Amino acid sequence: MLDLQDTIVAPATPAGVSAISVVRASGNDAIAIVNQCFSKDLTDKDGYTIHYGYIKDGEATVDEVLISLFRNPNSYTGEDSLEISCHGSPYIVKRVLETLVKNGARMAEPGEFTLRAFLNQKLDLAQAEAVADMIHSNSEASLQMAIAQIRGGFSEDIRYLRQELIDFAALIELENDFGEEDVEFANRPKLKALVEKLLTQIEQLRSSFVAGNALKNGINTVIAGKPNAGKSTLLNALLNEERAIVSDIEGTTRDTIEELFVLDGVQFRLIDTAGLRESRDTIEQIGVGKTRASMQKAELLVYLFDITRTSGQELEQELSELPQVEKTILVANKVDDLEVNKKAWPENTVFISAKQGSIEPLIAALQHVVAHYELGNETVINNARHADALSKSSEALQQVLDGMEMNITSDLIALDIRSSLHYLGLITGEVTNDEVLDSIFGRFCIGK
Amino acid sequence: MLDLQDTIVAPATPAGVSAISVVRASGNDAIAIVNQCFSKDLTDKDGYTIHYGYIKDGEATVDEVLISLFRNPNSYTGEDSLEISCHGSPYIVKRVLETLVKNGARMAEPGEFTLRAFLNQKLDLAQAEAVADMIHSNSEASLQMAIAQIRGGFSEDIRYLRQELIDFAALIELENDFGEEDVEFANRPKLKALVEKLLTQIEQLRSSFVAGNALKNGINTVIAGKPNAGKSTLLNALLNEERAIVSDIEGTTRDTIEELFVLDGVQFRLIDTAGLRESRDTIEQIGVGKTRASMQKAELLVYLFDITRTSGQELEQELSELPQVEKTILVANKVDDLEVNKKAWPENTVFISAKQGSIEPLIAALQHVVAHYELGNETVINNARHADALSKSSEALQQVLDGMEMNITSDLIALDIRSSLHYLGLITGEVTNDEVLDSIFGRFCIGK
Repeated sequence: MLDLQDTIVAPATPAGVSAISVVRASGNDAIAIVNQCFSKDLTDKDGYTIHYGYIKDGEATVDEVLISLFRNPNSYTGEDSLEISCHGSPYIVKRVLETLVKNGARMAEPGEFTLRAFLNQKLDLAQAEAVADMIHSNSEASLQMAIAQIRGGFSEDIRYLRQELIDFAALIELENDFGEEDVEFANRPKLKALVEKLLTQIEQLRSSFVAGNALKNGINTVIAGKPNAGKSTLLNALLNEERAIVSDIEGTTRDTIEELFVLDGVQFRLIDTAGLRESRDTIEQIGVGKTRASMQKAELLVYLFDITRTSGQELEQELSELPQVEKTILVANKVDDLEVNKKAWPENTVFISAKQGSIEPLIAALQHVVAHYELGNETVINNARHADALSKSSEALQQVLDGMEMNITSDLIALDIRSSLHYLGLITGEVTNDEVLDSIFGRFCIGK
Repeated sequence: MLDLQDTIVAPATPAGVSAISVVRASGNDAIAIVNQCFSKDLTDKDGYTIHYGYIKDGEATVDEVLISLFRNPNSYTGEDSLEISCHGSPYIVKRVLETLVKNGARMAEPGEFTLRAFLNQKLDLAQAEAVADMIHSNSEASLQMAIAQIRGGFSEDIRYLRQELIDFAALIELENDFGEEDVEFANRPKLKALVEKLLTQIEQLRSSFVAGNALKNGINTVIAGKPNAGKSTLLNALLNEERAIVSDIEGTTRDTIEELFVLDGVQFRLIDTAGLRESRDTIEQIGVGKTRASMQKAELLVYLFDITRTSGQELEQELSELPQVEKTILVANKVDDLEVNKKAWPENTVFISAKQGSIEPLIAALQHVVAHYELGNETVINNARHADALSKSSEALQQVLDGMEMNITSDLIALDIRSSLHYLGLITGEVTNDEVLDSIFGRFCIGK
């Protein structure tokens, strides 16, 4: 996959009939290849210019196109690149690609343009991953995190941490070179202070993963409660549509229903569940089992009870059986036109009428949750690969500290420092291997 | 719909997660509006250049983009235009459009970019229609016709015919101005010769519609025959896939199945039909009825018979019952490993074994059909609106001839000439009205 010699081509826009489609070409011979099938000579044209003409396959005209020209190194891939903007017909796109391949290009693998950008040092690995996040972003929060990561703030943080460690590592390695002479170039208290500082910083980054992941993939929100508490009615009210089947019959919902709901730019993955009760209906029993499993994994539990049919004692019993999750919102439903004595219920209870669409108090509570995840100026990580590398880097640093505590020799300390550097380097791609690259770029779409 | 004052925006690529998406903007204020939300100043930049930067919605960065800049009149629409190439996320496209609308643009109607191109005389109506044909082209033949039409050869033909008529009309109108003085500026024999020449040329164009339409929309090809003649097996063999259910049971196919098959760049709309027989099965009866209806409308009838179970007399009987269509290919199927006495069957019979995939003789016969439709250098029309306008123009010219024959007055002749000019003008849009424009551009996609 790492051959950078040939010229690759791919469609860069989705297949479909539309105003325009874009075909991308990149590589050493990209301009020469396109030139062979274009009605104008692009040889002496500047980068960042656009050229009108015809794509020709031998005698046949394939399309009337605009070609955007980018010259090495000022292109996405860092290579000579062209974007052919043709009429938006799948047939024409196929013909343009065929013509380019006939003239010496080959079809690109998924993510190969971005892979080349990485190999040509136009962006590092974390930035390349942010490109994929960008394309898959579907809320303001996920978009903003991707943009921040593309801009390289996170990469800079990692490189800075790494550089500090590298400087120290150099001194330690020097001690090793002197072998048995027992010199100490690296000041131990200073090293200890540095490692402790790095550990704090790495831990800070790593712990941002919970929020970052929730913002990127949505907050895993389970709506649970006894049968007929109004869970499906609430889901429909939140989504403002008839998503779930609602009836007065207890046990109407059996499958867990999952829907996205975006509030203040943050995505909630709402999971409507089967009501919690002992049931003789086998299918419903399976549903209740799923509900319990969902609740275990929830980041946010919205627990509903029917205020007209639940006593304080019953509620207490219900709540005592709930699993511990990061955050629970207790919701009294069916307030409808009742006068409610709010003091009779647990503090922070939210009172709504899902049926009447009076769910503002719940929206306010959800906004409170969103505020909790709000993006500040600190770097937030949202990529499991990064979290894993940070953990491993942190473990290695902890061993450096432990080793120094035990006065182990500098060659062993150096080993742990190198291991920590290795894991930090994996994040930005300063250290890498084909397997990592394959798994990252293989998930990209064709043409990116 | 004809307001050209405001700036329109629309996505120009299909919705979907992909490498890039393109958003288009066009109008007097297009550059100013994009400038308000772009990180660079485009005011003094040349047309046909590309600019890298960020789209900003207030403080928030919406995306990292490339902007292609086109200046009036050197753009698709003839107005100042920009193409914003952003990351291929539907969410980002939505955000970019929102931001542009917030800054003063409005969402474009379907076809509005091309409508503006027409109103700004960047292309005429026939060329605009060719743009839509281009986007919907799905075979080499349909593509090549669209390209020829975009390039304007057909429009030039029409304009040339029209100009010749206009010159003469001017002389006739002059006669009218002199009222009762009975002068004759327009030489009647010359006028007659001209009108006859135009009639021939228009008729030539009009008669090319049959071929043009077949090439554009595919040749309507019905595969028919008695039950179990192997029609579905043949369809599958042509398509090289298991499209139709095949069994030894007579009457397996009930619904007519339609599939596209492209040969030498020309599309065949293959219609597999229920076998022709009297049946007591109601559903099968309906199927047979459909078969007969399909055959009536066929441009090409591929009539199959089972050579192992059909006598010469039976075949003669079958053939006598077939409707008259433009072209029929008679196919003897199930030749398999038989020694066939080809002379015993009608001339031009094609012998195949669909089951064994030995269908080359049929392919050759189809290629012969394709050659019949081959595009020469003459202009071919493929648009029903054009065919209709040519017919009406031709009728009016015929009345000019008839009128001259009857020595009617020049003012009545002028009336018919104007009518003929009107219909010719409708084709290229030199004469037009909102209704015609709506019906043409309303069928375009958004962003074109």
